[in-house]
Amino acid sequence: MAANKKNTTALNEKEGVSQPETLNKEIVKHLKKKQLSVKELVAGILNQNQADLSQAITIIESTAQKHQQQAKEIIEKCLPHANRSIRIGITGVPGVGKSTFIESFGKLLISEGKKVAVLTVDPSSSISKGSILGDKTRMEDLVKEENAFIRPSASGDTLGGVARKTRETIILCEAAGFDVILIETVGVGQSETAVHSMTDFFLLLKLAGAGDELQGIKRGIMEMADSIIINKADGENLKAAKMAKTEFNRALHLYPAKESDWAPKTLLCSAIKNEGISEIWEVIMNYFDTVKSNGYFQYKRKEQNKFWLLQTIESRLKSEFYANAAVKKELENQLNALDKNKTTPFEAAEKLLSITKKK
Amino acid sequence: MAANKKNTTALNEKEGVSQPETLNKEIVKHLKKKQLSVKELVAGILNQNQADLSQAITIIESTAQKHQQQAKEIIEKCLPHANRSIRIGITGVPGVGKSTFIESFGKLLISEGKKVAVLTVDPSSSISKGSILGDKTRMEDLVKEENAFIRPSASGDTLGGVARKTRETIILCEAAGFDVILIETVGVGQSETAVHSMTDFFLLLKLAGAGDELQGIKRGIMEMADSIIINKADGENLKAAKMAKTEFNRALHLYPAKESDWAPKTLLCSAIKNEGISEIWEVIMNYFDTVKSNGYFQYKRKEQNKFWLLQTIESRLKSEFYANAAVKKELENQLNALDKNKTTPFEAAEKLLSITKKK
Repeated sequence: MAANKKNTTALNEKEGVSQPETLNKEIVKHLKKKQLSVKELVAGILNQNQADLSQAITIIESTAQKHQQQAKEIIEKCLPHANRSIRIGITGVPGVGKSTFIESFGKLLISEGKKVAVLTVDPSSSISKGSILGDKTRMEDLVKEENAFIRPSASGDTLGGVARKTRETIILCEAAGFDVILIETVGVGQSETAVHSMTDFFLLLKLAGAGDELQGIKRGIMEMADSIIINKADGENLKAAKMAKTEFNRALHLYPAKESDWAPKTLLCSAIKNEGISEIWEVIMNYFDTVKSNGYFQYKRKEQNKFWLLQTIESRLKSEFYANAAVKKELENQLNALDKNKTTPFEAAEKLLSITKKK
Repeated sequence: MAANKKNTTALNEKEGVSQPETLNKEIVKHLKKKQLSVKELVAGILNQNQADLSQAITIIESTAQKHQQQAKEIIEKCLPHANRSIRIGITGVPGVGKSTFIESFGKLLISEGKKVAVLTVDPSSSISKGSILGDKTRMEDLVKEENAFIRPSASGDTLGGVARKTRETIILCEAAGFDVILIETVGVGQSETAVHSMTDFFLLLKLAGAGDELQGIKRGIMEMADSIIINKADGENLKAAKMAKTEFNRALHLYPAKESDWAPKTLLCSAIKNEGISEIWEVIMNYFDTVKSNGYFQYKRKEQNKFWLLQTIESRLKSEFYANAAVKKELENQLNALDKNKTTPFEAAEKLLSITKKK
């Protein structure tokens, strides 16, 4: 409820702001001009050419058979040059100021000599055809920076598909020399979990509210957060933000220690006023010092690779099973029988499993 | 750490207490005497004969082909008489006093005219061959009650297997006229989740401790709890228990509202002194009033059936895939390649999936 209200307010605030020009239009123009070969594209990526990077990502996102083979080759050639960035996941409900935060944060990183890529995982872009994050690239300043690369969410039928494309895009961005990859998402379905599983550090953006804002946090999100940032901590909001900070810190304290040995912290910032941003970056650098020296960084990346391998296998096994026409039909019968207590879940499962065996 | 200490203390306390006679010995004798037919067993179950119920459960737990067919028939015949109990899950680390609590609680229920079955889900009983819950049935008084039925955990290779047998046992117990099924578990692996998925109400038992005891709660367990009971709230412990109650209530308040519309409560009790037990039962009755009138009770049971159906299918699809010899071998290769950044999780998954397709 509270989140909805905030949401509406935030959206109203922004009403009438015209959409900025984005890099993407140039890329589209570029794409129309000339289709480069895999070899040319990879050379361009390694040469840090953003237009070539964009074209390669478009190939990854394509569902055409021809492109899928090309995508494989591009990724394979980029892999030896990947894995060198730090990957930061950023989430928060619409209206919390993610774009403004990423803009301020990204500009700080660039001022420190970093190259910053901003990706998004937003399954709603394919479901509702209206992306929450992708279309309205409000990072007007960041988009102009030479060392920034902003790419809206891939579209796809499933979160799994969208997440896969983003993970492959990370590899390409890393090969193109980006030091920091920011991956933005919103609380749609399991997208936070997906982003958490492809990043090293997970940031939860919140607003200070009526004191009951903790209630609005989706189950599990707090546990994933390596840091909670209370945005819009300025002016009249400041007092409430400080109170929220205390409350969040108390809540974080209630969770068991993380495997990373990192104790999550709550921080305040005002992205629009550019306040508190460097403190956040310091905390993040502290985190990376900690996990790179205790080995958790490397461990987590390997675990993430394993997770995605098994995840992909298991979701494919499932989707192929349930796509079977005979299974589909019998599943309905069995669910019916289950509803009427005429079978047990186990008996029903066995009947269904026997269908694909018979073949 | 704290849990370990408590654990040791609790074990020491009990040292030298001889194991009580349990029903199981009689059952074993009974089993040796005479193997009843499916028809006889079902008649016995419906006639509330505990020895027949026990023999039927033994058949469910058996891995022999012959017994599996019998088990199916027994369950099928019991199903129309099942689903009439309330199912309460109980968890807590060793030393928290689960057995003592169940004994006090069970006796109260029996004094109110209920028939109480106590089952356990304890995958460690098969892994370590030394069950935490099963062997040391310390419910000396409860075991003597005519209207109580206590059955230790089934053994099995996997939690899934153990859970399945317990779920099927619930059906038999319900057919045998038990009104309340208590299902006990300890924090081993995913066993809490399994028990949560087969019960209507989930109780978390805790001890008051040094104030940091909240830290010891495994991720996700607090969110599952419909009530937290702080046991051993007596004598010198009482003050600490009251403080813990405040802290737990605050922590519970931080979670989003439950789908059941039920606001979890923290309660104090001293199972050994029989204090606070009837208050707990009142809260549980309140819960059932709430969820039976708002439809959540029926909804949750249907959802649980669906969950177990899909769960069974998916775990079988996985286990069969990974059991394939060629997959096993190639999985190692692919994990190696992944470690060396020579492949992506998605590419590796495709290679593995193609193995079973070729056949």
